[in-house]
Amino acid sequence: MKKTDNNADILINRTMIKVRFSEVDSMNIVWHGVYLKYFEDGRESFGLEYPGLGYGDIMKSGYMTPIVDISLQYKSPLKYNDRAIIETRFINTETAKICFEYEIRRELDNKIVALGNSTQVFTDHDGILQLWSPEFYLKWKEKWNVK
Amino acid sequence: MKKTDNNADILINRTMIKVRFSEVDSMNIVWHGVYLKYFEDGRESFGLEYPGLGYGDIMKSGYMTPIVDISLQYKSPLKYNDRAIIETRFINTETAKICFEYEIRRELDNKIVALGNSTQVFTDHDGILQLWSPEFYLKWKEKWNVK
Amino acid sequence: MKKTDNNADILINRTMIKVRFSEVDSMNIVWHGVYLKYFEDGRESFGLEYPGLGYGDIMKSGYMTPIVDISLQYKSPLKYNDRAIIETRFINTETAKICFEYEIRRELDNKIVALGNSTQVFTDHDGILQLWSPEFYLKWKEKWNVK
Amino acid sequence: MKKTDNNADILINRTMIKVRFSEVDSMNIVWHGVYLKYFEDGRESFGLEYPGLGYGDIMKSGYMTPIVDISLQYKSPLKYNDRAIIETRFINTETAKICFEYEIRRELDNKIVALGNSTQVFTDHDGILQLWSPEFYLKWKEKWNVK
Repeated sequence: MKKTDNNADILINRTMIKVRFSEVDSMNIVWHGVYLKYFEDGRESFGLEYPGLGYGDIMKSGYMTPIVDISLQYKSPLKYNDRAIIETRFINTETAKICFEYEIRRELDNKIVALGNSTQVFTDHDGILQLWSPEFYLKWKEKWNVK
Repeated sequence: MKKTDNNADILINRTMIKVRFSEVDSMNIVWHGVYLKYFEDGRESFGLEYPGLGYGDIMKSGYMTPIVDISLQYKSPLKYNDRAIIETRFINTETAKICFEYEIRRELDNKIVALGNSTQVFTDHDGILQLWSPEFYLKWKEKWNVK
Repeated sequence: MKKTDNNADILINRTMIKVRFSEVDSMNIVWHGVYLKYFEDGRESFGLEYPGLGYGDIMKSGYMTPIVDISLQYKSPLKYNDRAIIETRFINTETAKICFEYEIRRELDNKIVALGNSTQVFTDHDGILQLWSPEFYLKWKEKWNVK
Repeated sequence: MKKTDNNADILINRTMIKVRFSEVDSMNIVWHGVYLKYFEDGRESFGLEYPGLGYGDIMKSGYMTPIVDISLQYKSPLKYNDRAIIETRFINTETAKICFEYEIRRELDNKIVALGNSTQVFTDHDGILQLWSPEFYLKWKEKWNVK
Protein backbone atom coordinates (compact mmCIF):
# COMPACT_ATOMS: atom_id res chain seq x y z
CA MET A 1 0.00 0.00 0.00
CA LYS A 2 3.07 2.19 0.04
CA LYS A 3 2.98 5.19 -2.24
CA THR A 4 5.34 8.09 -2.55
CA ASP A 5 4.77 10.48 -5.40
CA ASN A 6 7.59 11.95 -7.46
CA ASN A 7 7.84 15.08 -5.40
CA ALA A 8 8.44 12.78 -2.47
CA ASP A 9 6.77 15.01 0.05
CA ILE A 10 3.79 12.81 0.76
CA LEU A 11 3.71 9.34 2.32
CA ILE A 12 0.43 7.45 2.34
CA ASN A 13 -1.00 4.62 4.41
CA ARG A 14 -4.40 2.98 4.14
CA THR A 15 -6.07 0.89 6.81
CA MET A 16 -9.55 -0.45 7.34
CA ILE A 17 -11.82 -0.09 10.34
CA LYS A 18 -15.21 -1.59 11.06
CA VAL A 19 -17.78 0.40 13.01
CA ARG A 20 -18.40 -0.98 16.51
CA PHE A 21 -21.82 -0.96 18.17
CA SER A 22 -20.46 1.21 20.97
CA GLU A 23 -19.35 3.84 18.43
CA VAL A 24 -22.81 4.74 17.07
CA ASP A 25 -25.14 7.21 18.70
CA SER A 26 -28.91 7.25 19.08
CA MET A 27 -29.28 8.25 15.40
CA ASN A 28 -27.57 4.91 14.60
CA ILE A 29 -24.62 6.75 13.06
CA VAL A 30 -21.06 7.02 14.32
CA TRP A 31 -20.84 9.72 17.01
CA HIS A 32 -18.78 12.59 15.59
CA GLY A 33 -16.12 12.37 18.30
CA VAL A 34 -15.24 8.79 17.36
CA TYR A 35 -13.54 10.03 14.20
CA LEU A 36 -10.61 11.24 16.29
CA LYS A 37 -10.10 7.58 17.25
CA TYR A 38 -10.20 6.66 13.58
CA PHE A 39 -7.59 9.31 12.82
CA GLU A 40 -5.45 7.87 15.62
CA ASP A 41 -5.95 4.40 14.13
CA GLY A 42 -4.73 5.92 10.88
CA ARG A 43 -1.57 7.39 12.43
CA GLU A 44 -0.96 4.08 14.18
CA SER A 45 -1.18 2.15 10.93
CA PHE A 46 0.98 4.76 9.21
CA GLY A 47 3.61 4.25 11.89
CA LEU A 48 3.67 0.50 11.20
CA GLU A 49 4.28 1.08 7.51
CA TYR A 50 6.91 3.81 8.00
CA PRO A 51 8.52 2.80 11.31
CA GLY A 52 10.23 5.33 13.53
CA LEU A 53 7.45 7.78 14.21
CA GLY A 54 5.37 5.86 16.78
CA TYR A 55 4.69 7.06 20.34
CA GLY A 56 7.30 4.63 21.59
CA ASP A 57 10.02 5.79 19.18
CA ILE A 58 9.33 9.40 20.00
CA MET A 59 9.40 8.84 23.76
CA LYS A 60 12.69 6.92 23.51
CA SER A 61 14.20 9.81 21.55
CA GLY A 62 13.37 12.10 24.46
CA TYR A 63 10.41 13.86 22.92
CA MET A 64 6.64 14.06 23.00
CA THR A 65 4.48 15.15 20.07
CA PRO A 66 1.26 16.66 21.40
CA ILE A 67 -1.47 17.50 18.91
CA VAL A 68 -1.94 21.27 18.74
CA ASP A 69 -4.48 21.54 15.97
CA ILE A 70 -7.07 19.28 14.46
CA SER A 71 -9.94 19.77 12.05
CA LEU A 72 -12.67 17.54 10.68
CA GLN A 73 -15.24 17.83 7.94
CA TYR A 74 -18.09 15.35 7.99
CA LYS A 75 -19.41 14.46 4.54
CA SER A 76 -21.59 11.39 5.04
CA PRO A 77 -22.48 9.22 8.05
CA LEU A 78 -21.10 5.77 8.88
CA LYS A 79 -23.44 3.17 10.37
CA TYR A 80 -22.98 0.19 12.65
CA ASN A 81 -21.02 -2.59 10.92
CA ASP A 82 -19.92 -0.34 8.03
CA ARG A 83 -16.35 -0.86 6.91
CA ALA A 84 -14.30 2.19 6.04
CA ILE A 85 -10.85 2.91 4.66
CA ILE A 86 -8.75 5.49 6.49
CA GLU A 87 -6.16 7.10 4.24
CA THR A 88 -3.49 8.87 6.25
CA ARG A 89 -1.12 11.17 4.39
CA PHE A 90 2.06 12.58 5.88
CA ILE A 91 2.40 16.14 4.61
CA ASN A 92 5.97 17.37 4.72
CA THR A 93 6.76 20.79 6.13
CA GLU A 94 9.98 22.69 6.75
CA THR A 95 8.93 23.55 10.28
CA ALA A 96 9.30 21.46 13.42
CA LYS A 97 5.87 19.88 13.02
CA ILE A 98 4.24 16.61 12.07
CA CYS A 99 1.31 17.17 9.75
CA PHE A 100 -1.18 14.53 8.61
CA GLU A 101 -4.18 14.65 6.32
CA TYR A 102 -6.98 12.08 6.65
CA GLU A 103 -9.59 10.83 4.23
CA ILE A 104 -12.13 8.25 5.34
CA ARG A 105 -14.19 6.43 2.70
CA ARG A 106 -17.01 3.94 3.15
CA GLU A 107 -15.80 0.64 1.70
CA LEU A 108 -19.13 -0.27 0.14
CA ASP A 109 -19.40 2.65 -2.28
CA ASN A 110 -16.05 4.43 -1.86
CA LYS A 111 -17.97 7.55 -0.78
CA ILE A 112 -16.05 10.10 1.29
CA VAL A 113 -17.22 10.02 4.86
CA ALA A 114 -14.86 12.46 6.54
CA LEU A 115 -11.81 14.57 5.89
CA GLY A 116 -9.43 15.99 8.40
CA ASN A 117 -5.96 17.09 9.31
CA SER A 118 -3.80 17.28 12.39
CA THR A 119 -0.67 19.10 13.47
CA GLN A 120 1.73 17.90 16.15
CA VAL A 121 4.67 19.75 17.64
CA PHE A 122 7.73 18.48 19.48
CA THR A 123 8.31 19.04 23.18
CA ASP A 124 10.88 17.55 25.50
CA HIS A 125 9.72 15.43 28.46
CA ASP A 126 9.24 18.60 30.51
CA GLY A 127 6.81 19.91 27.92
CA ILE A 128 9.17 22.58 26.51
CA LEU A 129 8.39 23.34 22.86
CA GLN A 130 11.19 22.50 20.42
CA LEU A 131 11.67 25.09 17.70
CA TRP A 132 13.85 22.86 15.54
CA SER A 133 13.05 19.41 14.25
CA PRO A 134 14.77 16.77 16.41
CA GLU A 135 17.58 14.73 14.86
CA PHE A 136 15.56 11.50 14.89
CA TYR A 137 12.80 13.18 12.89
CA LEU A 138 15.20 14.52 10.25
CA LYS A 139 16.69 11.05 9.92
CA TRP A 140 13.26 9.50 9.61
CA LYS A 141 12.44 11.94 6.80
CA GLU A 142 15.70 11.14 5.07
CA LYS A 143 15.10 7.42 5.38
CA TRP A 144 11.70 7.73 3.71
CA ASN A 145 13.00 10.21 1.18
CA VAL A 146 10.74 13.03 2.29
CA LYS A 147 12.36 16.40 1.65
CA MET B 1 -24.30 33.77 33.43
CA LYS B 2 -26.39 35.10 30.56
CA LYS B 3 -24.72 37.69 28.38
CA THR B 4 -25.83 39.26 25.15
CA ASP B 5 -23.80 42.11 23.83
CA ASN B 6 -25.32 45.17 22.22
CA ASN B 7 -24.96 43.83 18.73
CA ALA B 8 -27.03 40.92 19.91
CA ASP B 9 -25.41 38.38 17.66
CA ILE B 10 -23.65 36.36 20.32
CA LEU B 11 -25.15 34.32 23.16
CA ILE B 12 -22.82 32.90 25.78
CA ASN B 13 -23.02 30.05 28.26
CA ARG B 14 -20.43 28.89 30.76
CA THR B 15 -20.32 25.52 32.48
CA MET B 16 -17.75 23.65 34.51
CA ILE B 17 -16.38 20.16 34.01
CA LYS B 18 -14.00 18.10 36.11
CA VAL B 19 -11.54 15.77 34.45
CA ARG B 20 -12.36 12.08 35.00
CA PHE B 21 -9.70 9.41 35.46
CA SER B 22 -10.97 7.61 32.36
CA GLU B 23 -10.42 10.76 30.29
CA VAL B 24 -6.64 11.01 30.73
CA ASP B 25 -4.12 9.13 28.62
CA SER B 26 -0.81 7.53 29.49
CA MET B 27 0.84 11.00 29.62
CA ASN B 28 -1.61 11.76 32.45
CA ILE B 29 -3.26 14.47 30.36
CA VAL B 30 -6.73 14.53 28.84
CA TRP B 31 -6.73 12.53 25.59
CA HIS B 32 -7.27 15.00 22.74
CA GLY B 33 -10.47 13.32 21.53
CA VAL B 34 -12.21 13.92 24.87
CA TYR B 35 -12.49 17.63 24.08
CA LEU B 36 -15.30 16.84 21.62
CA LYS B 37 -17.23 15.55 24.65
CA TYR B 38 -16.47 18.76 26.47
CA PHE B 39 -17.74 20.78 23.50
CA GLU B 40 -20.91 18.66 23.56
CA ASP B 41 -21.23 19.33 27.30
CA GLY B 42 -20.94 23.02 26.39
CA ARG B 43 -23.74 22.84 23.78
CA GLU B 44 -25.86 20.89 26.25
CA SER B 45 -25.42 23.52 28.93
CA PHE B 46 -26.05 26.26 26.37
CA GLY B 47 -29.34 24.56 25.47
CA LEU B 48 -30.45 24.63 29.11
CA GLU B 49 -29.81 28.36 29.34
CA TYR B 50 -31.40 29.22 25.99
CA PRO B 51 -34.09 26.53 25.64
CA GLY B 52 -35.39 25.45 22.27
CA LEU B 53 -32.24 24.29 20.55
CA GLY B 54 -31.69 20.91 22.23
CA TYR B 55 -31.62 17.56 20.40
CA GLY B 56 -35.16 16.88 21.65
CA ASP B 57 -36.56 20.24 20.46
CA ILE B 58 -34.96 19.82 17.07
CA MET B 59 -36.23 16.25 16.62
CA LYS B 60 -39.75 17.29 17.59
CA SER B 61 -39.64 20.06 14.99
CA GLY B 62 -38.91 17.44 12.35
CA TYR B 63 -35.21 18.16 11.89
CA MET B 64 -31.77 16.86 12.70
CA THR B 65 -28.66 19.02 13.00
CA PRO B 66 -25.60 16.95 12.11
CA ILE B 67 -22.19 18.47 12.70
CA VAL B 68 -20.46 19.08 9.36
CA ASP B 69 -17.32 20.85 10.50
CA ILE B 70 -15.34 21.03 13.69
CA SER B 71 -11.93 22.39 14.61
CA LEU B 72 -9.86 22.40 17.77
CA GLN B 73 -6.70 24.15 18.88
CA TYR B 74 -4.94 22.74 21.93
CA LYS B 75 -3.12 25.35 24.00
CA SER B 76 -2.30 23.68 27.31
CA PRO B 77 -3.03 20.23 28.79
CA LEU B 78 -5.65 19.36 31.41
CA LYS B 79 -4.79 16.78 34.06
CA TYR B 80 -6.81 14.34 36.12
CA ASN B 81 -9.05 16.16 38.63
CA ASP B 82 -8.52 19.55 37.00
CA ARG B 83 -11.62 21.71 36.82
CA ALA B 84 -12.23 23.69 33.66
CA ILE B 85 -14.75 26.23 32.42
CA ILE B 86 -16.28 25.66 29.00
CA GLU B 87 -17.49 28.87 27.39
CA THR B 88 -19.85 28.17 24.51
CA ARG B 89 -20.73 31.06 22.23
CA PHE B 90 -23.53 30.97 19.67
CA ILE B 91 -22.31 32.84 16.60
CA ASN B 92 -25.16 34.13 14.49
CA THR B 93 -25.10 33.64 10.74
CA GLU B 94 -27.55 34.46 7.97
CA THR B 95 -27.26 30.97 6.51
CA ALA B 96 -29.14 27.82 7.57
CA LYS B 97 -26.46 26.79 10.05
CA ILE B 98 -25.82 26.61 13.77
CA CYS B 99 -22.34 27.86 14.63
CA PHE B 100 -20.67 27.67 18.01
CA GLU B 101 -17.30 28.81 19.31
CA TYR B 102 -15.72 27.16 22.35
CA GLU B 103 -13.13 28.33 24.83
CA ILE B 104 -12.00 26.05 27.62
CA ARG B 105 -10.02 27.50 30.53
CA ARG B 106 -8.44 25.75 33.49
CA GLU B 107 -10.25 26.98 36.60
CA LEU B 108 -7.11 27.17 38.74
CA ASP B 109 -5.25 29.80 36.72
CA ASN B 110 -7.79 30.81 34.06
CA LYS B 111 -5.33 29.67 31.41
CA ILE B 112 -6.75 28.79 27.99
CA VAL B 113 -6.66 25.06 27.46
CA ALA B 114 -8.43 24.68 24.14
CA LEU B 115 -10.33 26.65 21.53
CA GLY B 116 -12.68 25.35 18.91
CA ASN B 117 -15.69 25.82 16.73
CA SER B 118 -18.41 23.71 15.21
CA THR B 119 -20.92 24.07 12.39
CA GLN B 120 -24.20 22.17 12.19
CA VAL B 121 -26.64 22.10 9.30
CA PHE B 122 -30.32 21.20 9.20
CA THR B 123 -31.67 18.05 7.57
CA ASP B 124 -35.11 16.51 7.68
CA HIS B 125 -35.56 13.05 9.21
CA ASP B 126 -34.63 11.48 5.86
CA GLY B 127 -31.31 13.29 5.94
CA ILE B 128 -32.17 15.82 3.20
CA LEU B 129 -30.22 19.06 3.63
CA GLN B 130 -32.37 22.14 4.30
CA LEU B 131 -31.22 25.23 2.43
CA TRP B 132 -33.34 27.61 4.50
CA SER B 133 -33.43 28.00 8.25
CA PRO B 134 -36.45 26.14 9.69
CA GLU B 135 -39.24 28.19 11.22
CA PHE B 136 -38.50 26.98 14.77
CA TYR B 137 -34.91 28.17 14.45
CA LEU B 138 -35.93 31.65 13.23
CA LYS B 139 -38.35 31.89 16.15
CA TRP B 140 -35.68 30.77 18.58
CA LYS B 141 -33.37 33.51 17.26
CA GLU B 142 -36.12 36.07 17.57
CA LYS B 143 -36.91 34.99 21.12
CA TRP B 144 -33.28 35.45 22.16
CA ASN B 145 -32.94 38.65 20.16
CA VAL B 146 -30.26 37.30 17.86
CA LYS B 147 -30.43 38.97 14.47
CA MET C 1 -11.45 -21.55 14.42
CA LYS C 2 -14.83 -23.26 14.80
CA LYS C 3 -15.09 -25.76 17.61
CA THR C 4 -18.08 -27.60 18.98
CA ASP C 5 -17.42 -30.30 21.50
CA ASN C 6 -19.28 -33.60 21.56
CA ASN C 7 -21.77 -32.43 24.11
CA ALA C 8 -22.57 -29.69 21.65
CA ASP C 9 -23.47 -27.12 24.24
CA ILE C 10 -20.58 -24.78 23.70
CA LEU C 11 -19.67 -22.76 20.59
CA ILE C 12 -16.37 -20.94 20.51
CA ASN C 13 -14.98 -17.99 18.57
CA ARG C 14 -11.57 -16.40 18.79
CA THR C 15 -10.65 -12.94 17.54
CA MET C 16 -7.68 -10.65 18.01
CA ILE C 17 -7.60 -7.06 19.17
CA LYS C 18 -4.72 -4.62 19.44
CA VAL C 19 -4.65 -2.08 22.25
CA ARG C 20 -5.24 1.49 21.05
CA PHE C 21 -3.50 4.50 22.58
CA SER C 22 -6.88 5.96 23.59
CA GLU C 23 -7.67 2.79 25.56
CA VAL C 24 -4.85 3.03 28.11
CA ASP C 25 -5.01 5.09 31.28
CA SER C 26 -2.40 7.14 33.10
CA MET C 27 -0.79 3.92 34.43
CA ASN C 28 -0.17 3.02 30.77
CA ILE C 29 -2.47 0.01 31.07
CA VAL C 30 -5.86 -0.56 29.49
CA TRP C 31 -8.55 1.22 31.52
CA HIS C 32 -10.72 -1.44 33.14
CA GLY C 33 -13.92 -0.25 31.47
CA VAL C 34 -12.49 -0.86 28.00
CA TYR C 35 -12.80 -4.63 28.51
CA LEU C 36 -16.56 -4.35 27.99
CA LYS C 37 -15.73 -3.13 24.47
CA TYR C 38 -13.46 -6.11 24.01
CA PHE C 39 -16.26 -8.45 25.14
CA GLU C 40 -18.54 -6.73 22.62
CA ASP C 41 -15.87 -7.21 19.94
CA GLY C 42 -15.91 -10.87 20.96
CA ARG C 43 -19.69 -11.21 20.60
CA GLU C 44 -19.49 -9.40 17.27
CA SER C 45 -16.86 -11.80 15.96
CA PHE C 46 -18.84 -14.74 17.35
CA GLY C 47 -21.87 -13.52 15.39
CA LEU C 48 -19.87 -13.50 12.16
CA GLU C 49 -18.80 -17.11 12.68
CA TYR C 50 -22.25 -18.34 13.76
CA PRO C 51 -24.59 -16.02 11.82
CA GLY C 52 -28.09 -15.29 13.02
CA LEU C 53 -27.47 -13.83 16.46
CA GLY C 54 -26.27 -10.33 15.55
CA TYR C 55 -28.01 -7.10 16.63
CA GLY C 56 -29.46 -6.80 13.14
CA ASP C 57 -30.85 -10.35 13.05
CA ILE C 58 -32.39 -9.93 16.48
CA MET C 59 -34.00 -6.58 15.62
CA LYS C 60 -35.45 -7.99 12.40
CA SER C 61 -36.98 -10.87 14.35
CA GLY C 62 -38.80 -8.33 16.52
CA TYR C 63 -36.66 -8.62 19.61
CA MET C 64 -33.96 -6.86 21.58
CA THR C 65 -31.43 -8.60 23.83
CA PRO C 66 -30.36 -6.23 26.59
CA ILE C 67 -27.52 -7.28 28.84
CA VAL C 68 -28.80 -7.88 32.36
CA ASP C 69 -25.71 -9.17 34.06
CA ILE C 70 -21.99 -8.93 33.45
CA SER C 71 -18.91 -9.82 35.47
CA LEU C 72 -15.19 -9.38 34.93
CA GLN C 73 -12.09 -10.66 36.63
CA TYR C 74 -8.84 -8.88 35.85
CA LYS C 75 -5.78 -11.13 35.99
CA SER C 76 -2.99 -9.18 34.32
CA PRO C 77 -2.79 -5.76 32.61
CA LEU C 78 -2.64 -5.08 28.88
CA LYS C 79 -0.42 -2.26 27.61
CA TYR C 80 -0.50 0.02 24.60
CA ASN C 81 0.14 -1.90 21.37
CA ASP C 82 -0.31 -5.32 23.03
CA ARG C 83 -2.19 -7.85 20.95
CA ALA C 84 -4.71 -10.07 22.71
CA ILE C 85 -6.96 -12.96 21.79
CA ILE C 86 -10.59 -12.77 22.87
CA GLU C 87 -12.17 -16.20 23.21
CA THR C 88 -15.96 -15.96 23.32
CA ARG C 89 -17.88 -19.06 24.32
CA PHE C 90 -21.63 -19.46 23.92
CA ILE C 91 -22.90 -21.34 26.96
CA ASN C 92 -26.19 -23.07 26.29
CA THR C 93 -29.01 -22.78 28.79
CA GLU C 94 -32.58 -24.04 28.85
CA THR C 95 -33.91 -20.64 29.83
CA ALA C 96 -34.73 -17.71 27.55
CA LYS C 97 -31.26 -16.21 27.86
CA ILE C 98 -28.07 -15.74 25.86
CA CYS C 99 -25.01 -16.51 27.96
CA PHE C 100 -21.41 -15.92 26.96
CA GLU C 101 -18.11 -16.57 28.69
CA TYR C 102 -15.01 -14.58 27.76
CA GLU C 103 -11.33 -15.28 28.13
CA ILE C 104 -8.78 -12.71 27.00
CA ARG C 105 -5.14 -13.74 26.62
CA ARG C 106 -2.10 -11.64 25.76
CA GLU C 107 -0.80 -12.90 22.41
CA LEU C 108 2.87 -12.57 23.38
CA ASP C 109 2.89 -15.06 26.25
CA ASN C 110 -0.63 -16.53 26.15
CA LYS C 111 -1.15 -15.24 29.69
CA ILE C 112 -4.75 -14.76 30.83
CA VAL C 113 -5.55 -11.08 31.03
CA ALA C 114 -9.23 -11.12 31.90
CA LEU C 115 -12.17 -13.46 32.31
CA GLY C 116 -15.82 -12.60 32.21
CA ASN C 117 -19.34 -13.57 31.44
CA SER C 118 -22.52 -11.89 30.30
CA THR C 119 -26.22 -12.70 30.29
CA GLN C 120 -28.75 -11.23 27.87
CA VAL C 121 -32.52 -11.61 27.94
CA PHE C 122 -35.10 -11.18 25.21
CA THR C 123 -37.57 -8.31 25.11
CA ASP C 124 -39.93 -7.21 22.37
CA HIS C 125 -39.52 -3.75 20.86
CA ASP C 126 -41.61 -2.28 23.68
CA GLY C 127 -39.15 -3.66 26.21
CA ILE C 128 -41.45 -6.41 27.52
CA LEU C 129 -39.46 -9.36 28.85
CA GLN C 130 -39.98 -12.65 26.97
CA LEU C 131 -40.23 -15.65 29.24
CA TRP C 132 -39.79 -18.17 26.41
CA SER C 133 -36.99 -18.35 23.89
CA PRO C 134 -38.13 -16.78 20.59
CA GLU C 135 -38.56 -19.07 17.61
CA PHE C 136 -35.56 -17.58 15.74
CA TYR C 137 -33.30 -18.34 18.70
CA LEU C 138 -34.46 -21.97 18.93
CA LYS C 139 -33.83 -22.34 15.19
CA TRP C 140 -30.40 -20.79 15.54
CA LYS C 141 -29.54 -23.29 18.29
CA GLU C 142 -30.81 -26.16 16.14
CA LYS C 143 -28.79 -24.96 13.17
CA TRP C 144 -25.60 -24.93 15.21
CA ASN C 145 -26.48 -28.17 16.95
CA VAL C 146 -26.63 -26.64 20.42
CA LYS C 147 -29.09 -28.50 22.60
CA MET D 1 -24.81 12.99 52.76
CA LYS D 2 -22.49 11.25 55.21
CA LYS D 3 -23.89 8.14 56.85
CA THR D 4 -22.19 5.57 59.01
CA ASP D 5 -24.41 3.03 60.67
CA ASN D 6 -23.84 1.79 64.21
CA ASN D 7 -21.88 -1.22 63.14
CA ALA D 8 -19.58 1.24 61.48
CA ASP D 9 -18.54 -1.04 58.68
CA ILE D 10 -20.22 0.81 55.86
CA LEU D 11 -19.54 4.32 54.56
CA ILE D 12 -21.90 5.80 52.00
CA ASN D 13 -21.65 8.53 49.39
CA ARG D 14 -24.27 9.73 46.95
CA THR D 15 -23.63 11.77 43.82
CA MET D 16 -25.66 12.70 40.78
CA ILE D 17 -24.85 12.23 37.11
CA LYS D 18 -26.71 13.33 34.00
CA VAL D 19 -26.67 11.16 30.92
CA ARG D 20 -24.65 12.64 28.06
CA PHE D 21 -25.63 12.29 24.41
CA SER D 22 -22.37 10.47 23.68
CA GLU D 23 -23.22 7.86 26.33
CA VAL D 24 -26.38 6.46 24.71
CA ASP D 25 -26.38 3.81 22.02
CA SER D 26 -28.55 3.30 18.95
CA MET D 27 -31.42 2.08 21.18
CA ASN D 28 -31.31 5.55 22.79
CA ILE D 29 -30.31 4.01 26.12
CA VAL D 30 -27.00 4.27 27.97
CA TRP D 31 -24.52 1.76 26.49
CA HIS D 32 -23.87 -0.89 29.13
CA GLY D 33 -20.13 -0.20 29.31
CA VAL D 34 -20.71 3.41 30.39
CA TYR D 35 -21.81 2.21 33.84
CA LEU D 36 -18.18 1.49 34.71
CA LYS D 37 -17.59 5.24 34.25
CA TYR D 38 -20.52 5.93 36.55
CA PHE D 39 -19.06 3.57 39.17
CA GLU D 40 -15.75 5.43 38.83
CA ASP D 41 -17.62 8.72 39.26
CA GLY D 42 -19.07 7.16 42.40
CA ARG D 43 -15.67 6.20 43.81
CA GLU D 44 -14.37 9.65 42.94
CA SER D 45 -17.18 11.35 44.82
CA PHE D 46 -16.75 8.93 47.71
CA GLY D 47 -13.08 9.93 47.87
CA LEU D 48 -14.03 13.60 48.17
CA GLU D 49 -16.32 12.89 51.12
CA TYR D 50 -13.90 10.54 52.91
CA PRO D 51 -10.50 11.93 51.87
CA GLY D 52 -7.41 9.75 51.81
CA LEU D 53 -8.41 7.01 49.41
CA GLY D 54 -8.08 8.81 46.07
CA TYR D 55 -5.72 7.76 43.25
CA GLY D 56 -3.37 10.58 44.27
CA ASP D 57 -3.27 9.61 47.95
CA ILE D 58 -2.66 5.99 47.09
CA MET D 59 0.14 6.79 44.63
CA LYS D 60 1.84 9.07 47.14
CA SER D 61 1.75 6.29 49.73
CA GLY D 62 3.67 4.08 47.31
CA TYR D 63 0.81 1.87 46.21
CA MET D 64 -1.57 1.22 43.35
CA THR D 65 -5.03 -0.30 43.72
CA PRO D 66 -5.95 -2.12 40.51
CA ILE D 67 -9.48 -3.43 40.14
CA VAL D 68 -9.44 -7.23 40.11
CA ASP D 69 -13.14 -7.98 40.06
CA ILE D 70 -16.25 -6.14 39.01
CA SER D 71 -19.86 -7.12 38.49
CA LEU D 72 -22.93 -5.32 37.23
CA GLN D 73 -26.63 -6.08 37.16
CA TYR D 74 -28.76 -3.98 34.85
CA LYS D 75 -32.30 -3.46 36.08
CA SER D 76 -33.74 -0.66 33.96
CA PRO D 77 -32.34 1.54 31.18
CA LEU D 78 -31.26 5.17 31.47
CA LYS D 79 -32.00 7.54 28.58
CA TYR D 80 -30.37 10.69 27.25
CA ASN D 81 -30.74 13.60 29.70
CA ASP D 82 -31.90 11.34 32.57
CA ARG D 83 -30.47 12.23 35.95
CA ALA D 84 -29.40 9.41 38.23
CA ILE D 85 -28.09 9.05 41.78
CA ILE D 86 -25.03 6.87 42.29
CA GLU D 87 -24.83 5.46 45.78
CA THR D 88 -21.35 4.14 46.55
CA ARG D 89 -20.91 2.05 49.68
CA PHE D 90 -17.55 1.13 51.16
CA ILE D 91 -17.83 -2.44 52.45
CA ASN D 92 -15.27 -3.20 55.10
CA THR D 93 -13.27 -6.42 54.95
CA GLU D 94 -10.48 -7.86 57.05
CA THR D 95 -8.41 -8.66 53.98
CA ALA D 96 -6.08 -6.33 52.06
CA LYS D 97 -8.81 -5.22 49.68
CA ILE D 98 -10.99 -2.23 48.91
CA CYS D 99 -14.58 -3.29 48.27
CA PHE D 100 -17.37 -1.06 47.02
CA GLU D 101 -21.03 -1.67 46.30
CA TYR D 102 -22.93 0.55 43.86
CA GLU D 103 -26.59 1.32 43.43
CA ILE D 104 -27.74 3.63 40.67
CA ARG D 105 -31.28 5.03 40.76
CA ARG D 106 -33.09 7.19 38.23
CA GLU D 107 -33.80 10.53 39.90
CA LEU D 108 -37.27 10.91 38.39
CA ASP D 109 -38.89 7.85 39.95
CA ASN D 110 -36.16 6.52 42.26
CA LYS D 111 -36.22 3.27 40.30
CA ILE D 112 -33.09 1.09 40.51
CA VAL D 113 -31.19 1.23 37.24
CA ALA D 114 -28.11 -0.80 38.04
CA LEU D 115 -26.33 -2.55 40.89
CA GLY D 116 -22.72 -3.54 41.09
CA ASN D 117 -19.65 -4.15 43.13
CA SER D 118 -15.91 -3.86 42.71
CA THR D 119 -12.84 -5.23 44.44
CA GLN D 120 -9.42 -3.58 44.39
CA VAL D 121 -6.16 -4.98 45.72
CA PHE D 122 -2.94 -3.22 46.73
CA THR D 123 0.27 -3.49 44.75
CA ASP D 124 3.50 -1.56 45.06
CA HIS D 125 4.71 0.56 42.13
CA ASP D 126 6.33 -2.52 40.61
CA GLY D 127 2.99 -4.28 40.56
CA ILE D 128 3.79 -6.71 43.41
CA LEU D 129 0.64 -7.78 45.27
CA GLN D 130 0.52 -6.74 48.92
CA LEU D 131 -0.87 -9.41 51.22
CA TRP D 132 -1.35 -7.06 54.16
CA SER D 133 -3.28 -3.80 54.23
CA PRO D 134 -0.87 -0.87 53.95
CA GLU D 135 -0.45 1.41 56.94
CA PHE D 136 -2.14 4.38 55.27
CA TYR D 137 -5.24 2.26 54.59
CA LEU D 138 -5.48 1.08 58.20
CA LYS D 139 -5.17 4.68 59.35
CA TRP D 140 -7.85 5.76 56.90
CA LYS D 141 -10.19 3.09 58.28
CA GLU D 142 -9.45 4.18 61.82
CA LYS D 143 -10.08 7.81 60.95
CA TRP D 144 -13.50 6.98 59.52
CA ASN D 145 -14.24 4.55 62.32
CA VAL D 146 -14.52 1.52 60.06
CA LYS D 147 -13.54 -1.65 61.87
